[in-house]
Amino acid sequence: MPRLILISGPSCIGKSPLVKGIGTLCPKVAETLETIVLYTDRDKRPGEEDGKDYHFRTREEIKALEGDKGYLVVDNRGDLQALELAAIDRILEKGCHALYEGNPRLPAKLREADVLEGYDTLSIFLSPLSRDELRAAQEAGLDIEALVTDIQRRKLLHRTTRQEGMLSRPDLDDIETRATSAYDELREAWRYDAVVPLHDGEGHDNWSRFGLPIGSARAAIKTVAALIAGQHTDGTEYWEADLLE
Amino acid sequence: MPRLILISGPSCIGKSPLVKGIGTLCPKVAETLETIVLYTDRDKRPGEEDGKDYHFRTREEIKALEGDKGYLVVDNRGDLQALELAAIDRILEKGCHALYEGNPRLPAKLREADVLEGYDTLSIFLSPLSRDELRAAQEAGLDIEALVTDIQRRKLLHRTTRQEGMLSRPDLDDIETRATSAYDELREAWRYDAVVPLHDGEGHDNWSRFGLPIGSARAAIKTVAALIAGQHTDGTEYWEADLLE
Repeated sequence: MPRLILISGPSCIGKSPLVKGIGTLCPKVAETLETIVLYTDRDKRPGEEDGKDYHFRTREEIKALEGDKGYLVVDNRGDLQALELAAIDRILEKGCHALYEGNPRLPAKLREADVLEGYDTLSIFLSPLSRDELRAAQEAGLDIEALVTDIQRRKLLHRTTRQEGMLSRPDLDDIETRATSAYDELREAWRYDAVVPLHDGEGHDNWSRFGLPIGSARAAIKTVAALIAGQHTDGTEYWEADLLE
Repeated sequence: MPRLILISGPSCIGKSPLVKGIGTLCPKVAETLETIVLYTDRDKRPGEEDGKDYHFRTREEIKALEGDKGYLVVDNRGDLQALELAAIDRILEKGCHALYEGNPRLPAKLREADVLEGYDTLSIFLSPLSRDELRAAQEAGLDIEALVTDIQRRKLLHRTTRQEGMLSRPDLDDIETRATSAYDELREAWRYDAVVPLHDGEGHDNWSRFGLPIGSARAAIKTVAALIAGQHTDGTEYWEADLLE
């Protein structure tokens, strides 16, 4: 039965390359997926297509959707994003899983608005640390918030340095905003149906540098694909609510 | 019973941080280990101590050991290294495991000289790819030698850039020598008692950047420590001779 599938996690955790990797490693699973096209007020980037990557609209147009019960609007670090609920239904009616891959604000909003109850949902949170690692860090008396921030900051620095060559002050501000959000996002991970640890960040060589995904990138792709296919896998974790309290 | 333990793998795979990590994560296992001090003709580096890190000798002194049946001498990319066989026995007599951690030339020499037969030995090869990944790469028709070289070259570039800031021509020559040796070394991995996949290279953040080892680094430390403690673990692979033929 087609489901609403939410794949989320902190910035730079590797959400996009993971979904792309399902296409490479598990094409039969990828065929069952159709991505929900969101509305956004951010500028179109080179190569992006209106109606395919996003519905590109003005800030005013998206703000106007806030009163509409058919839409959910979230603020993604200053950019507005909107989801048309009927877009989910149109995909499900085709017999495909409706896929959202992105920041945790929209899944939270879907949950708060009691939308998830209306769907057969599979929500997956990609975590920079496994439960075992978090427990070990807690036992060692480490500051978990600082630890998670540091891990994600390193990945963001790495990815942005690759993209930009050298980093500007606005780059570093943006990285800091994203890195310091990661811990609060991780604290909500237990609300997801499954947590999948993923250590290779978005700019990591292991995704696509070598002709096939390897390492943690590969393991996470396979685990998520198996979850979508309805199979149990060893790489999946189910977090208790108080793990990060 | 105390054993001769050989931990080897390609340059930059993470042999040294792995052994160091056993001390951090599994101190009780680390207490059962004593490292065999080798002879070398290379220059002493800052912080190194004669008789502790190596027995530092002249090239002539080490060359003279070649005829001595009590010593094995190998050429490690131009540096001579020698192992005094009695050094193994002295450690075992104390009730400790005698640990060699280093390049695959010495384990190969020990094997060829039929020395290993005289000891209860545990030999572990750290591999940049798991068997599953190698099989997938073979099925995808990838050039495995080029793949392994590329993976190790990236790690070496990363580590050396961290150490040197910028890379010189001799740095790149050295990296190329090490990277292009990796495949031939990997082809001998099946001769080891166990193969442990390890994706985080020697300069990777996951070893010691965050206050505790995480990711593939952590998994490999735990797997090797368990093997030393005589336990079976899921992370261990046993390779067939024709995997890389």
